[in-house]
Amino acid sequence: MSPDDIARTRLRPRRMGIDSHSEPVAFLRADCHVCRSEGFEAQSRISVTVGDKTIITTLNIVYSDILGKGDIGLSEAAWKRLDISNGEVATLSHTPSLDSMSHVRSKLYGHRLSREGMEAIVTDVVAGRYGDIQLAALLTACAGNRLDLSEITWLTTAMVNAGHRIDWGREKVMDKHCLGGLPGNRTTPIVVSIAAACGLTIPKTSSRAITSPAGTADAMETMTRVAMSLEDMKRVVEKENACLVWGGSVSLSPADDILIRIERALDIDSEGQMVASVLSKKAAAGSTHVLIDIPVGPTAKVRGRQAADHLSHLLKSVGEALGMQVRTIQTDGTQPIGYGVGPALEAADVLAVLRNDPRAPTDLRERALLVAGELLELGGIAAHGKGNRMARETLHSGRAGEKFMAICEAQGGFREPQISPCTRGFTARRTGIVTHINNRLVSRLAKLAGAPGASGAGLRLAVHLGDRVEHGDPMFELFAESPGELAYAMEFHEAHPDMIVIEEESV
Amino acid sequence: MSPDDIARTRLRPRRMGIDSHSEPVAFLRADCHVCRSEGFEAQSRISVTVGDKTIITTLNIVYSDILGKGDIGLSEAAWKRLDISNGEVATLSHTPSLDSMSHVRSKLYGHRLSREGMEAIVTDVVAGRYGDIQLAALLTACAGNRLDLSEITWLTTAMVNAGHRIDWGREKVMDKHCLGGLPGNRTTPIVVSIAAACGLTIPKTSSRAITSPAGTADAMETMTRVAMSLEDMKRVVEKENACLVWGGSVSLSPADDILIRIERALDIDSEGQMVASVLSKKAAAGSTHVLIDIPVGPTAKVRGRQAADHLSHLLKSVGEALGMQVRTIQTDGTQPIGYGVGPALEAADVLAVLRNDPRAPTDLRERALLVAGELLELGGIAAHGKGNRMARETLHSGRAGEKFMAICEAQGGFREPQISPCTRGFTARRTGIVTHINNRLVSRLAKLAGAPGASGAGLRLAVHLGDRVEHGDPMFELFAESPGELAYAMEFHEAHPDMIVIEEESV
Repeated sequence: MSPDDIARTRLRPRRMGIDSHSEPVAFLRADCHVCRSEGFEAQSRISVTVGDKTIITTLNIVYSDILGKGDIGLSEAAWKRLDISNGEVATLSHTPSLDSMSHVRSKLYGHRLSREGMEAIVTDVVAGRYGDIQLAALLTACAGNRLDLSEITWLTTAMVNAGHRIDWGREKVMDKHCLGGLPGNRTTPIVVSIAAACGLTIPKTSSRAITSPAGTADAMETMTRVAMSLEDMKRVVEKENACLVWGGSVSLSPADDILIRIERALDIDSEGQMVASVLSKKAAAGSTHVLIDIPVGPTAKVRGRQAADHLSHLLKSVGEALGMQVRTIQTDGTQPIGYGVGPALEAADVLAVLRNDPRAPTDLRERALLVAGELLELGGIAAHGKGNRMARETLHSGRAGEKFMAICEAQGGFREPQISPCTRGFTARRTGIVTHINNRLVSRLAKLAGAPGASGAGLRLAVHLGDRVEHGDPMFELFAESPGELAYAMEFHEAHPDMIVIEEESV
Repeated sequence: MSPDDIARTRLRPRRMGIDSHSEPVAFLRADCHVCRSEGFEAQSRISVTVGDKTIITTLNIVYSDILGKGDIGLSEAAWKRLDISNGEVATLSHTPSLDSMSHVRSKLYGHRLSREGMEAIVTDVVAGRYGDIQLAALLTACAGNRLDLSEITWLTTAMVNAGHRIDWGREKVMDKHCLGGLPGNRTTPIVVSIAAACGLTIPKTSSRAITSPAGTADAMETMTRVAMSLEDMKRVVEKENACLVWGGSVSLSPADDILIRIERALDIDSEGQMVASVLSKKAAAGSTHVLIDIPVGPTAKVRGRQAADHLSHLLKSVGEALGMQVRTIQTDGTQPIGYGVGPALEAADVLAVLRNDPRAPTDLRERALLVAGELLELGGIAAHGKGNRMARETLHSGRAGEKFMAICEAQGGFREPQISPCTRGFTARRTGIVTHINNRLVSRLAKLAGAPGASGAGLRLAVHLGDRVEHGDPMFELFAESPGELAYAMEFHEAHPDMIVIEEESV
């Protein structure tokens, strides 16, 4: 029996209704003829073909009657990727050996990854040939700043080439990005609305949260549709000069979406991976001019000036290699921006700014105006030093808010963000001045409350650095979908009471 | 509802009959009350408690009727670890956050792991708190020789402390180990038989294959029972001064068994992990004197003299820190030893040597006598330089063979190893001298044929380095359980014809 004969063995695909989330899973009975003759065992990686589609799955062996003998069970991820119609049959084959893992092993031993090695790895990742274990090893091998400039450039290029690259047919296509690590720093919808209102083309694709309580796509999704096809996205941009969508649904840098899932589980953000992730999305989105906001602070993602300068250098260099003009700004990353932390809570802050609500968070507004101003200058709309003023006028006049609503309408309609119903307020335990806010603990607490999985969950801060508070004054409020999650977050807060530090005023 | 309330929600455990091999999996209906109120989603890590046992599982969400609404489905691994009796109920809780991963992340960024960090990691690994993704990240972070001597010592100590440590109540307890990477180098059963026949105490625990086609435990299992309780093992050693068992079943260094599964999937062997793996097993097994054979060769696990010297230094230093006297010998690692590669095929070679069969592989016999001689000297039974002769006499007299059979009898009875039925011979494509044998390709081919999962699979070499062969002479024979696997291995061999290099004789 040759490998071709194996492929001629036909099995009935059966949807198991099991969501294993991660890698696609196939289920075979232990006494199934293919399982026995091929020597497959649990955790084997096998190729499953239905029609003209082939995917690689991890095998689970079934010893019960939840599956028939001539059946192959498929998890939700496997079923959807195979796109099975009635009556189709599945054939199996051994998975070709994963040769590109030798490049990962070589990297582990301190050797540089070659351009060919990087391409081979990314090709295999996008084809689904890496299981979760291999993906974790790849990310870990490249983490800790172990990729040099060439390696990051090759990784980024390989990631761009592995997906679609959009051509907008316009000379200047603007983009902006914030490196995150700063809870609540949701300037993007405001910046995009201002830039588009001023006439710049800015088709913004955003990612969901990696290790934070909310990404821009998560926040936008509480107000409008963000999962859109490329055609729909083009239609929106044609009409409004801008869009605010999730990048994952338009297959821009599909490798990035696969890697991000494992990065999230490991809670690691590596420098090279971060640069490749950001710039591959930008290049694939057809951007020509990109402004990158790097918040710097002791508990932000980038902790010091030196690290920010290095990152800035990498971003500009890799951007240039990909034909993009990248400008970076370093901003204050010492505390959260705005009040809300979590998708809907951040969306509420964004709306307050766009509506010129007097209760809108000043810091979020000023940060957005700073970034928008830089972008207007980078795009050649405002003269050097005049961008901030133009941005401010656009916001105050209401034109930015109108543009935002128009974008949401074009994407499928606007809705008000919904905050989670289970709440609990926390008050100051002493009188004094707020001297420290630990961004990492704030993020962690919002995540434990359910963000970003539960879009209405998170927390709303009542204070900022330097505020004077009395004993008993409100400090922050927690929001969760279920009492269990609220209790879990509160338990964590009890164990980490130094999230917000209040010191007595010196006399 | 507090975390305590969640734990009061009771679910009926149901055995799904699904072998997911890796981490234990729990299945919950999407519309189950706990799932909804707790906000659990696919790939959540949740704690499941039944009676006095709690395990951590990865969650799969079920959308079909293979599970009832008040049920919690459990994979085979989860079911077995919870050891469920009829009528028991299961309670769930959120998994405490995995704080020790912060040490892994710190290591990624080049910081040294502290003793406390290493202990926290190993404690969490043994408690099953690391999922496959986290285990892969841990192994990758420590691979590539990134652990220094102190870190390896702490890792080893933590691994020893996380399991049982056997006290034999004897002054000298011998052990030997071969660092592997040399296909077919199955000296252990011969060496143990000789040493025990000469009066040394040598309770040998071996591991199964990590990245090789066979470990000593795999080979021994084709001849006798190797999965034994500590009590049974003690009874065997009491009677015969020796045993030849699998270390995994007696809970010696349970962390090692968990890590090895992921190392195997990643096909990585890291230096620090290797030292910790070997010495934690030795220390836990109560060894006082350990001889370690390091085969050195361009395609062996250790490729050069310098690497071998470094490894030797690490092994002796870490051994000393754990109170063991470690001696190392460096041996020729340029080619496979014996003829067979694969559990049963290697067992057949071992038996031929022990039975003084004239067709027994000379190289395996001489290698075993070299190691046994060193061990007799280390154990103080033979004077310096006299060990090899004593070993040879013990083998030739038949006393080693008798001791081997006695050990097998004490472990539950001896059986002849069974070779797989599907075979295919390969012959020389030209006349000349065998100048290179690529150990890695030999191992890979034996694994593709099914070893070590199929114990009778692998290959049998007909030639060694320096042999003169005629065109058409037999070179090696492949053995597999199924035609599919045989075809798969043959396909690989076609793609890598340089496994055995024959060069024309210079005139």
